[in-house]
Amino acid sequence: MSYNTFGHMFRVTTWGESHGPALGCTVDGCPPGVAINEEMLQHWMDQRKPGGSKYVTQRREADAVRILSGVFEGRTTGTSIQLMIENTDQRSKDYGEIAQSFRPGHADITYHQKYGLRDYRGGGRSSARETAARVAAGGVARAVLADLVPGLRIRGAMVQMGTLRTDRRDWDTVRDNPLWCPDPDAVADWEAALDALRKEHDSVGAVIEINAAGVPAGLGAPVYAKLDTDLAAAMMSINAVKGVEIGEGMAAATLRGSENADEIRMGPDGPVYGSNHAGGILGGISTGQELVVRFAVKPTSSILTPRKTIRVDGTETEIITKGRHDPCVGIRAVPVGEAMMACVILDHLLLDRAQTAGVRGAIGG
Amino acid sequence: MSYNTFGHMFRVTTWGESHGPALGCTVDGCPPGVAINEEMLQHWMDQRKPGGSKYVTQRREADAVRILSGVFEGRTTGTSIQLMIENTDQRSKDYGEIAQSFRPGHADITYHQKYGLRDYRGGGRSSARETAARVAAGGVARAVLADLVPGLRIRGAMVQMGTLRTDRRDWDTVRDNPLWCPDPDAVADWEAALDALRKEHDSVGAVIEINAAGVPAGLGAPVYAKLDTDLAAAMMSINAVKGVEIGEGMAAATLRGSENADEIRMGPDGPVYGSNHAGGILGGISTGQELVVRFAVKPTSSILTPRKTIRVDGTETEIITKGRHDPCVGIRAVPVGEAMMACVILDHLLLDRAQTAGVRGAIGG
Amino acid sequence: MSYNTFGHMFRVTTWGESHGPALGCTVDGCPPGVAINEEMLQHWMDQRKPGGSKYVTQRREADAVRILSGVFEGRTTGTSIQLMIENTDQRSKDYGEIAQSFRPGHADITYHQKYGLRDYRGGGRSSARETAARVAAGGVARAVLADLVPGLRIRGAMVQMGTLRTDRRDWDTVRDNPLWCPDPDAVADWEAALDALRKEHDSVGAVIEINAAGVPAGLGAPVYAKLDTDLAAAMMSINAVKGVEIGEGMAAATLRGSENADEIRMGPDGPVYGSNHAGGILGGISTGQELVVRFAVKPTSSILTPRKTIRVDGTETEIITKGRHDPCVGIRAVPVGEAMMACVILDHLLLDRAQTAGVRGAIGG
Amino acid sequence: MSYNTFGHMFRVTTWGESHGPALGCTVDGCPPGVAINEEMLQHWMDQRKPGGSKYVTQRREADAVRILSGVFEGRTTGTSIQLMIENTDQRSKDYGEIAQSFRPGHADITYHQKYGLRDYRGGGRSSARETAARVAAGGVARAVLADLVPGLRIRGAMVQMGTLRTDRRDWDTVRDNPLWCPDPDAVADWEAALDALRKEHDSVGAVIEINAAGVPAGLGAPVYAKLDTDLAAAMMSINAVKGVEIGEGMAAATLRGSENADEIRMGPDGPVYGSNHAGGILGGISTGQELVVRFAVKPTSSILTPRKTIRVDGTETEIITKGRHDPCVGIRAVPVGEAMMACVILDHLLLDRAQTAGVRGAIGG
Repeated sequence: MSYNTFGHMFRVTTWGESHGPALGCTVDGCPPGVAINEEMLQHWMDQRKPGGSKYVTQRREADAVRILSGVFEGRTTGTSIQLMIENTDQRSKDYGEIAQSFRPGHADITYHQKYGLRDYRGGGRSSARETAARVAAGGVARAVLADLVPGLRIRGAMVQMGTLRTDRRDWDTVRDNPLWCPDPDAVADWEAALDALRKEHDSVGAVIEINAAGVPAGLGAPVYAKLDTDLAAAMMSINAVKGVEIGEGMAAATLRGSENADEIRMGPDGPVYGSNHAGGILGGISTGQELVVRFAVKPTSSILTPRKTIRVDGTETEIITKGRHDPCVGIRAVPVGEAMMACVILDHLLLDRAQTAGVRGAIGG
Repeated sequence: MSYNTFGHMFRVTTWGESHGPALGCTVDGCPPGVAINEEMLQHWMDQRKPGGSKYVTQRREADAVRILSGVFEGRTTGTSIQLMIENTDQRSKDYGEIAQSFRPGHADITYHQKYGLRDYRGGGRSSARETAARVAAGGVARAVLADLVPGLRIRGAMVQMGTLRTDRRDWDTVRDNPLWCPDPDAVADWEAALDALRKEHDSVGAVIEINAAGVPAGLGAPVYAKLDTDLAAAMMSINAVKGVEIGEGMAAATLRGSENADEIRMGPDGPVYGSNHAGGILGGISTGQELVVRFAVKPTSSILTPRKTIRVDGTETEIITKGRHDPCVGIRAVPVGEAMMACVILDHLLLDRAQTAGVRGAIGG
Repeated sequence: MSYNTFGHMFRVTTWGESHGPALGCTVDGCPPGVAINEEMLQHWMDQRKPGGSKYVTQRREADAVRILSGVFEGRTTGTSIQLMIENTDQRSKDYGEIAQSFRPGHADITYHQKYGLRDYRGGGRSSARETAARVAAGGVARAVLADLVPGLRIRGAMVQMGTLRTDRRDWDTVRDNPLWCPDPDAVADWEAALDALRKEHDSVGAVIEINAAGVPAGLGAPVYAKLDTDLAAAMMSINAVKGVEIGEGMAAATLRGSENADEIRMGPDGPVYGSNHAGGILGGISTGQELVVRFAVKPTSSILTPRKTIRVDGTETEIITKGRHDPCVGIRAVPVGEAMMACVILDHLLLDRAQTAGVRGAIGG
Repeated sequence: MSYNTFGHMFRVTTWGESHGPALGCTVDGCPPGVAINEEMLQHWMDQRKPGGSKYVTQRREADAVRILSGVFEGRTTGTSIQLMIENTDQRSKDYGEIAQSFRPGHADITYHQKYGLRDYRGGGRSSARETAARVAAGGVARAVLADLVPGLRIRGAMVQMGTLRTDRRDWDTVRDNPLWCPDPDAVADWEAALDALRKEHDSVGAVIEINAAGVPAGLGAPVYAKLDTDLAAAMMSINAVKGVEIGEGMAAATLRGSENADEIRMGPDGPVYGSNHAGGILGGISTGQELVVRFAVKPTSSILTPRKTIRVDGTETEIITKGRHDPCVGIRAVPVGEAMMACVILDHLLLDRAQTAGVRGAIGG
């Protein structure tokens, strides 16, 4: 991975700023012959787009995605696919304060130090609006995966919001609430907590879990493109993410070897595991169990509470960030995490074809 | 990253199996003119090598590193550096059981499924012996960094072992104990716990923290080669790692925005931060604060307690793993984590030269 | 290089088909702070655009380039730059014959065999219209080079058309004729020959020479990203190119060692060479002399003379290619070759910063 | 391609200097399960090794290749393969003159300018000894290709030596003479010419042709990893190469469209072409015809004739290059070109599996 491109074989290059005319991505390495159209992609865009509930930014973007290349008569051609999303609600305002001051917890200061200048309008390139392009690319990946791996299912949820967390994974009800909470009994409490937080002009962090069922065994390229390595990189590249876990994650440190190793039995269709502490990955290669990835999203730093900072000229000041910000950016990170999971799985599916040239080791008769 | 290579500009390609004749790596992209010799590298090799205390594997390897290319009259030439470590203590034994059975929690089964065959001797390529090559490469990186970033200091410690953890970071005493524990008051308890565990034929996980002080601001290549993205990938690629955290890590989920964003003041030499929840990285770019990375290592699955598993032919069995295994592989992961940190920092230092072509944004007069 | 991206550090990803709504490219790795605007890019676009003289395709495209990202207040930000060119003159017509038949000498048949389907409208992705995106990217590269290497001058010419060739390099008059011919005395003859050819419904090949003066010594990354390696790849990737030469090129085979090696003297500003058989590159690294690259462009296969071919269903047929095609595609390849030269030089300038970390070997006192 | 690695999926990283202890390469991306042993590789090494006839360098190297990793019980494991060749005949001598002076036509001066220092012993990294590692890697590629593409045949010949050239391609007799000349009637003349040249203390250039028959249609990744692009880069990366041609090559410039486009008929097994001006590649993708690649090798600059040059200190001098040099380095470039052809074909075969995910377009029935 380098710069603005991710993926080995299914390569996505994103471009665009929060308040520029448009943003988008080039999807390179998509196999030919797959049915794709704008409606299919829009389905996923709508899950991430702003303005969907009172718990997310009130910026109004249609996030309408256009396919400019790489699809002919409804099918992919195997050439580069250009996806473009025009920005329509870049609110015109005075950016004077933000242009001269660095918001604590933002990329303002590091972009300035690295590049010597920055597009301060809405965070420019460092804005989470960049993730719209990822969701579009993820839509392409899902269409391909539907062809190549029937039965694959990728699902995400917010499993922790601040100090509130749940162990339930009621996947069928996740989309019934605006918080992507997988525990229907917890939704009311979580909403109340978030309402209170907004009134206090504050924000809160979250943990997102992405689950992929139906992934074939054998995906992952040891040693430095292990499946978990690439998933960790993919999730850590999402704005505001500070930690990534596979399976037991950080809690693996607390386990004993006799507890942690998932025992193996033989089932009618192949190996069956007694547990899934590994999160579906051993030695960097998928086992065929569910992939389980979690990531922590820090609370948005764009809050109305005044915070100490400095200006470009070195003078000290206090700043509050007005604007239309998410009190819990974790909510909209769920479809982004799903999109990254789809891209990484497809990437490794294609990579594996090159690596092993069709080899698969049998177990049993 | 792909296959057996990591890094963008400082590229390390590792090779070799646990019980083959040798292992090593090619270091490509090392700047010319840097003083390097085998003794300098051996210093770091000795920190990771087996047999150092009763708490690590009793395999006896000198881990003597040879420089075969890329260094002329004591200085790097800018061409590819080959580092080779011969294996000397590949104990000859009957691998019959392991050759036919998959150890639970190991890469045995996934390598078989992916590649159709595997080098079962000591885990072959999936063995943690691969990390010896990383430590050698890390030694090269440290030599270059000593030239380019005087004052840079990379230090690692085991900050949690099973359920025992410490918040102390007494860096000066870390190497005084065989557990890389940064809390001198805790060492005796941790050693006692580990002794008990070995008697129970079990193993335990750990959390390792790597700290880098003196890293210049401005390193990191948004969006998909962010400094934290690359650190996450680097650490997750180490054997047995299941989670990676930057700064607050997973705990960032529990914080409020008003708590989490590090306030900024102006000091005599530039920006000064009131805290370091960010772990030294904002928007994927270093702030100049200490880089703080943690990763969780699962307990080794190679234990003497019998575990249910299957054979290649699909029949079920129980297995115990004899051999010379680490009761807490986290211990020897500390120098590996340090090496990866050194490689990633140097990689981004070189990458930044290309990216920004010398630009740096000033703050203040 | 892979897929639709070229370059190591200055990375250009192109997208778009001949008859799709638009085409363009993402330029990644452009240093920050460089002044760029659409007018600057348009200057180069206009040199390649169709309809410029009677000797090139009569398709009417404004080839207006838009900057959609990566530039803020007139300066590059160091983030990905999106350049888009809308197609406006995709003539609506019946593609029935071309959809079912493979034009000899075209990519029709190989795209079909590889991808199973193809965008047959005007050649789709295999059309030379793709090179418009390269010229746009080359415009960005030139703007950066103007900052980093004052005095650098990149010039191209058609030095052979069919069997007519010239050894003159009167660079100042090249743009005074529509054939990019560097020999003012030859222009009339060449034009007459091309007029005759058009009347015969035929086409002809050409040799293009690209010359870069003022390139600093030391660019090139041995062994597999040598400057000549990358130039060869860059030029060979242009549509219809069948051969690439550096310096003496194929004629180097006929020389003796005593003739070929360029002798070195010491001048007031450094080494001075008595000749330039090497074309400015030794061991894959620039010497500081003029870079001299030539490439052969085959005659366009889209001619009105009937040719034997087959249809997708395997039946045999004859085909003539109507449409607005260039009788000598070499003409419009000149600005494309210049653009590729600019991109490769900048790419290596940035790469060298990372590789050598600022080292340069002095010669003399 | 970057630095010391070539290939997209079948990646070869070479290391080592002419007079260091050893040289070799890491082959990454080799599919698992392929039978490989040292004898198979040695067969190819012996074709390139020095000392084979009076027409090549008299340096005596066994060029014995050792497999240090990636092969288990005689089969590839899918992990990185390390191949090492020890240098045994690094003649100890006084390098004083070469250490201080730059040989005209060599990389001495550019390595000095770029890196600030160089391994002057025998050319160090810039020596053609590096190509030994390529031939070893090519041996691995050939073993894999023998499995994946039965019937594939790669053959090389020296088709021009100085001004002597032949149009005959009597492949069966090529190995019957030490010059790899494909024209048995010309051998005696060529040998006489080379004998005369050696007596005159001079050297001469050559053109090498590499032919691959049995390559399947559909290989090549437009736009920037076209099969011809990658072949051009592969050949141009070989020491002393100054030009590369595909099919008609530079002569394509002299042809008319009505002559150049290869007409297509339908044969019993698919398309049949009436000619092969294209050299087996259209639009960057293989047609299934023979791949035909030629490259020009300049005469070695290491000759006994005195030449003007400068020293590191800037003073002027004359130099003659003693030592054991090839009067026509083109001879030993033939097996190197074959090796590169094998690597590129395998690389694209693997890449195509990822790109198209198994798609192939049918023609006919």
